[in-house]
Amino acid sequence: MTVGIQPRTITVPKRLLLGPGPSELDPEVARALSLPSLGHLDPAMVEIMQDIKRLLQYTFVTRNEATLAVSGTGTSAMETALANVIEPGDKVLVGIMGYFGDRLAQITAKLGGQVIRVEAEWGKAIDPDMIIARIKEVTPQVVCLVHAETSTGVVQPEIEHISSAAHEVGAVLVVDTVTSLGGQPVKVDDWGIDVCYSAGQKCIGAPSGLSPITFGELALDKINKRTTPVSSFYLDLNLLRNYWDSQQYHHTISAPLVYALHTALDKIQQEGLENRWKRHEINQRAFLAGVEALSLDLLAEKDHRLNTLITIKTTEDIAERTIRQELLNDYSIEVGGGIGPFQGKLLRIGLMGYGSRREFIIQLLAALESILRKHGRPVPEGCSVAAAMKVYETAL
Amino acid sequence: MTVGIQPRTITVPKRLLLGPGPSELDPEVARALSLPSLGHLDPAMVEIMQDIKRLLQYTFVTRNEATLAVSGTGTSAMETALANVIEPGDKVLVGIMGYFGDRLAQITAKLGGQVIRVEAEWGKAIDPDMIIARIKEVTPQVVCLVHAETSTGVVQPEIEHISSAAHEVGAVLVVDTVTSLGGQPVKVDDWGIDVCYSAGQKCIGAPSGLSPITFGELALDKINKRTTPVSSFYLDLNLLRNYWDSQQYHHTISAPLVYALHTALDKIQQEGLENRWKRHEINQRAFLAGVEALSLDLLAEKDHRLNTLITIKTTEDIAERTIRQELLNDYSIEVGGGIGPFQGKLLRIGLMGYGSRREFIIQLLAALESILRKHGRPVPEGCSVAAAMKVYETAL
Repeated sequence: MTVGIQPRTITVPKRLLLGPGPSELDPEVARALSLPSLGHLDPAMVEIMQDIKRLLQYTFVTRNEATLAVSGTGTSAMETALANVIEPGDKVLVGIMGYFGDRLAQITAKLGGQVIRVEAEWGKAIDPDMIIARIKEVTPQVVCLVHAETSTGVVQPEIEHISSAAHEVGAVLVVDTVTSLGGQPVKVDDWGIDVCYSAGQKCIGAPSGLSPITFGELALDKINKRTTPVSSFYLDLNLLRNYWDSQQYHHTISAPLVYALHTALDKIQQEGLENRWKRHEINQRAFLAGVEALSLDLLAEKDHRLNTLITIKTTEDIAERTIRQELLNDYSIEVGGGIGPFQGKLLRIGLMGYGSRREFIIQLLAALESILRKHGRPVPEGCSVAAAMKVYETAL
Repeated sequence: MTVGIQPRTITVPKRLLLGPGPSELDPEVARALSLPSLGHLDPAMVEIMQDIKRLLQYTFVTRNEATLAVSGTGTSAMETALANVIEPGDKVLVGIMGYFGDRLAQITAKLGGQVIRVEAEWGKAIDPDMIIARIKEVTPQVVCLVHAETSTGVVQPEIEHISSAAHEVGAVLVVDTVTSLGGQPVKVDDWGIDVCYSAGQKCIGAPSGLSPITFGELALDKINKRTTPVSSFYLDLNLLRNYWDSQQYHHTISAPLVYALHTALDKIQQEGLENRWKRHEINQRAFLAGVEALSLDLLAEKDHRLNTLITIKTTEDIAERTIRQELLNDYSIEVGGGIGPFQGKLLRIGLMGYGSRREFIIQLLAALESILRKHGRPVPEGCSVAAAMKVYETAL
């Protein structure tokens, strides 16, 4: 039997990654990937994992002991959150304002939870009062929300008020911060979030494959009182905690990803969370000034725009696909396209982690400006970069 | 609120990894990890993933179209195998001769399968005739076996005969090759295996975090006829296939792990599977000659010893823990210890992938010899290295 392919050494083009993820890696994070491998029981590895736990507590702004990184992508963290707290038959109120809210509902249904949807039109945030009213009406066991909806660039406001309402009826609040953690304010303890998770490859600035998650007391209490086993072995929180806290064998964590995550989190602490949030905010403002100079329209409304992911509506005269292909082929810049109802109608631009930097924003604006002009849009030369630079001159 | 730790740059000791995994990385595989990141939709990434699929078909010796790598460790691949083919209520015959067979039973139970155990004492293989007799008696829907039991160093013989018996009653055969794939013969199509999975960090020679898996027609047919949804979204085969084959978004695969897996698999094809199996066999023989010269006892019986993982019984005069600590601290060599009934009583030595090399074996034997002598064992100087070298002189 002969199968296989011609041997080849892979060559990888250097892209500027300004899509919805993975984001650009700090050169030091990339370098950490090729440190020598260590076994998961090596004392040096145990110490690095303990560091990661504490650095994650810093990043989530929590004192939760049950804080660790799941050995999988953000979706595995989402499933870990839901699979541990939801029991079959539980009423689960799911806030849906885009693709990832819908995914929360899909996973909940697979786990046997009764999904109660609270929806907003894609591109808008869900009215917190509507969520709170539904919580009172339905008295669910679990409430799930997406804080930063990657499909639309919208931030869900008033998590702390929703949390109070959830706790009044004894519900556990699960919040997805895949596109916000490490990029804009997320305060697990202050906001009263019971389960919060994220991913490595967005604002944290690591590669994907190890995903932060944290569980508070209310969630642990619900897990301890389960009458049915957690359906997954790989994502079972109690097994994961024994692995992280007591080195009880569960799986073989990926050493290069551990080094990279440690380095990325250490950089967050060195920069300081407040400074990092501020940096993402200023870069977003500068980019938006450039976008406005180019007369492009944004999807998300002013008060609900993420600092980390910006969504620009495209129009029929220049197809989304054309812009993305020209950015990739002529400038080696990756940005994302629309999904769901916005398929072919949206640019999704991630300014996340190391990717939220002045020089990258200038590169992207200059490229966008040239592409628009090439396709007949009457944009004044240099307008977008000038508009962005003006924000930097005032802000810094 | 002030949480966090002192900032620090991690320093990682260089170990020689000769435990049950992770194994040593080829320097080219380590280098591939720090290639520039790519998004999962980048045409260059799509091409690399298609390569990986074909290289995995070569490594599994299969023409199965449903061949890919799961974004998690070997345990996630085990769960992917079981979660997709097992429906609640299915009779699942599980062969158990060590820790990982037991894990198959645990996951099966979590998924609602009825576990029927066929066991051998840890350290022995299961009699294939006993498995075949039980298959005829029980007529299960699924049969699960561990080909290479990492906890004991034992290989399960006659998979192809067990496969025929399983197929006679219409059962799907799932085989764990975590510690054999890429190191000693595994032939998915010739042996009639319906679902086969492995891990990156053993004989494949990649880091952990992306785990090979393949499904044949009988397994796909059972999955298509399911009357209940697969409980996991993250590990749902149909979603994974759409992601690998049609770039339908499911998760964000870890670019560094993709590069490393591609490089490791490419090296397998360049070496040639037969040559690679032969290399592992010769290195095992050389190492065993050295172990015999040291008068150490092996756990696994002659006919059922893995070429990839060797288990040495320790005795009370020199504790397992002492040997492992001295190897680590004085020689920077990692080997594994016993688990389950062999806790504190076994050395587990992995000679896997790039780690199956003459120079590493010589280093380990020389170190073991010195440690034994230091603790009062009357071993002639240089005996173990000489015995190993003699095997190489004859074999090469």
